[in-house]
Amino acid sequence: MKKNVLIIGAGGVAQVVAHKCAQNNDVLGDLHIASRTKSKCVAIIESVQAKNAMKQEGVFEAHQVDATQSDQVAALIRETGAEIVINVGTAFVNMHVLDGCIETGAAYIDTAIHEEPDKICETPPWYANYEWKKRDLCAEKGVTAILGAGFDPGVVNAFARFAVDRLDEVKSIDIVDINAGSHGKYFATNFDPEINFREFTGVVYYWEDQQWKETTMFASGHEWDLPVVGKQMAYQSGHDEVHSLATNYPQADVRFWMGFGEHYINVFTVLKNIGLLSEHPVTTAEGQEVVPLKVVKACLPDPASLAPEYTGKTCIGDLVKGTKDGAEAEIFVYNVADHKDAYEEVGSQGISYTAGVPPVAAAMLIADGTWDAGTMKNVEELDPKPFFTILDRIGLPTRIRDAEGDRPWNA
Amino acid sequence: MKKNVLIIGAGGVAQVVAHKCAQNNDVLGDLHIASRTKSKCVAIIESVQAKNAMKQEGVFEAHQVDATQSDQVAALIRETGAEIVINVGTAFVNMHVLDGCIETGAAYIDTAIHEEPDKICETPPWYANYEWKKRDLCAEKGVTAILGAGFDPGVVNAFARFAVDRLDEVKSIDIVDINAGSHGKYFATNFDPEINFREFTGVVYYWEDQQWKETTMFASGHEWDLPVVGKQMAYQSGHDEVHSLATNYPQADVRFWMGFGEHYINVFTVLKNIGLLSEHPVTTAEGQEVVPLKVVKACLPDPASLAPEYTGKTCIGDLVKGTKDGAEAEIFVYNVADHKDAYEEVGSQGISYTAGVPPVAAAMLIADGTWDAGTMKNVEELDPKPFFTILDRIGLPTRIRDAEGDRPWNA
Repeated sequence: MKKNVLIIGAGGVAQVVAHKCAQNNDVLGDLHIASRTKSKCVAIIESVQAKNAMKQEGVFEAHQVDATQSDQVAALIRETGAEIVINVGTAFVNMHVLDGCIETGAAYIDTAIHEEPDKICETPPWYANYEWKKRDLCAEKGVTAILGAGFDPGVVNAFARFAVDRLDEVKSIDIVDINAGSHGKYFATNFDPEINFREFTGVVYYWEDQQWKETTMFASGHEWDLPVVGKQMAYQSGHDEVHSLATNYPQADVRFWMGFGEHYINVFTVLKNIGLLSEHPVTTAEGQEVVPLKVVKACLPDPASLAPEYTGKTCIGDLVKGTKDGAEAEIFVYNVADHKDAYEEVGSQGISYTAGVPPVAAAMLIADGTWDAGTMKNVEELDPKPFFTILDRIGLPTRIRDAEGDRPWNA
Repeated sequence: MKKNVLIIGAGGVAQVVAHKCAQNNDVLGDLHIASRTKSKCVAIIESVQAKNAMKQEGVFEAHQVDATQSDQVAALIRETGAEIVINVGTAFVNMHVLDGCIETGAAYIDTAIHEEPDKICETPPWYANYEWKKRDLCAEKGVTAILGAGFDPGVVNAFARFAVDRLDEVKSIDIVDINAGSHGKYFATNFDPEINFREFTGVVYYWEDQQWKETTMFASGHEWDLPVVGKQMAYQSGHDEVHSLATNYPQADVRFWMGFGEHYINVFTVLKNIGLLSEHPVTTAEGQEVVPLKVVKACLPDPASLAPEYTGKTCIGDLVKGTKDGAEAEIFVYNVADHKDAYEEVGSQGISYTAGVPPVAAAMLIADGTWDAGTMKNVEELDPKPFFTILDRIGLPTRIRDAEGDRPWNA
């Protein structure tokens, strides 16, 4: 039974992770949080204390760490006695944090794929470029590493597994992510603009007819009619979970669709076409070297600042099609979250909430042994039912809609 | 008779000025060009030589100067024996170059109002913030300083004067600047993006009912039907010449209208609303201090690079209304220029051409004594006819359209 938790990162998602760990510190143990800037960690712990979120008395300490240095991560794991590391730092640190876990034997959980600062949209399947290269080492050392355990990737992988298990044959998995909320700003991204835009500037890979295919952002759109949020346009986007699901279910077409309004697409298109979303430095007339994307990020609202005014709901789910008992069958497995509810509970907006709650559920499943696999796993490789059971209880209930209607997954 | 010319600046307009000075070096004398980066000056002289543009054998030398230092400018004026300085450097250097001229007695010509890097759209009339404070000193020392002698400001001030002189009473002066050309890029500005956007981000001042009024960019639009370019939308913009014309013709409403397509307005609006057109530094997550506007400038095409592919025409003119012999009267005084013709003649696009030819005409009028006023003047305070006569000959013919038809100004 692993218990003590070290959270890496101090952004909007880390804030949710911290609150949820505190609310469940009877199942988990001592809590620690570390980032490049210790004061941000202190502020998060203060917000946990302000909400009186600790379920029982216990440790919650802030630390400074340079998570690009695996030896620093390993030293901090040893110092804190952490048995589970929830990595919700920037995607640039993933492999270094994983290395720190492998070195110390701590379990590793992250919510997004590793990225190198100067590369975008590498060869599919993306996980094979970095994470899966360490799979054999994790197995050999008995280290549990759960990759992509946020909402998407994460819960949507579990949605896919759940649906696939109910079918005789799976033909397609379409993941649809709609944020029908409103933050009231001219323009903002819901998480780190740098990571957000990087998702959309490169090749959009998807899996169809048992092969990788390519499109570009906003080139392939479809109107979806979803529970609660209604009819919404969404566009094929590159996303982590396509790469593991296509590997684990090669017989199915796997696509990811993200909802965007016309205004978002217009702003994105202008910035991209001018070159302002580039991660490659330009030189100003004065000779200063600057990465345009980092300047755009500095101009945009801090995603965490959106929370107090954010209203409306998100709907994220998987439409899975296949056959059952010789007939065509389809099922939509989904969650609806509310921005205002999230803010009231943990001081964060709904996008951070949906990303931050699932890795805590994963940590709880490692702590009780259910998901303590002793090797590297993507979420669809683990039993989804105990995951849904915890998520139902801690804020992200799973529902299904199929020919028999719309209901809780276990109804 | 002043003759030798020193050009300050080495951008797209300086290239035109250099070619036109060379083509008229029988009227002018030795030619010199100086900027922060000497190699740019050398390249301009090479392009003059490549076109075999020198009318007669003569001097054309490149120099390095920091034009924000008036003592460096004065030293260079003395070293080169320059009697006329054509300042087409960045608007940030104007007052320093003017000081260098006042110190040495050289005549001064510029094409745009002085700006301080950290201020935008100061109190109207703009010229009173900097240039006109030196008017008495110029008069006392007998120094000729011709302010705003490009196209707009510059030729359009002469258009206004010409029209006002034909009326008994002037009621309004509307300056309309339409670029109906196409550069084939996603987005580009026709001159330095930094200066270009600064024109549009602040208060738009205009003069109506004998008082300063304010609007904002793109808030006040009007469709104009102009010669050659046809029907075009233009929007009230802040522009230098409004500030001198309103002072010299306070009885007239004075407005400036610039043509923009929907695409330009959309891109501008996105960049402005995000804060990317700000001249105030932001700090990136990595702690780098950056002025967003300078990064946008670095991402956009160099205006000079547009020239080879630029096609189409510009139409810039003044619609002047008033009374003549007791009846309402109106006259449109204008020029049409062609981007491709400009490129073929001097290697520049049409916007640089229209801005760069007039100060050379002004220099020729100083050289022959006609405009050697021995004090500071805005262009409408000088006789427009000799100016038009030279402009007709060197590439920017003036036409008029009124109740009697459309014809050359002197037909």
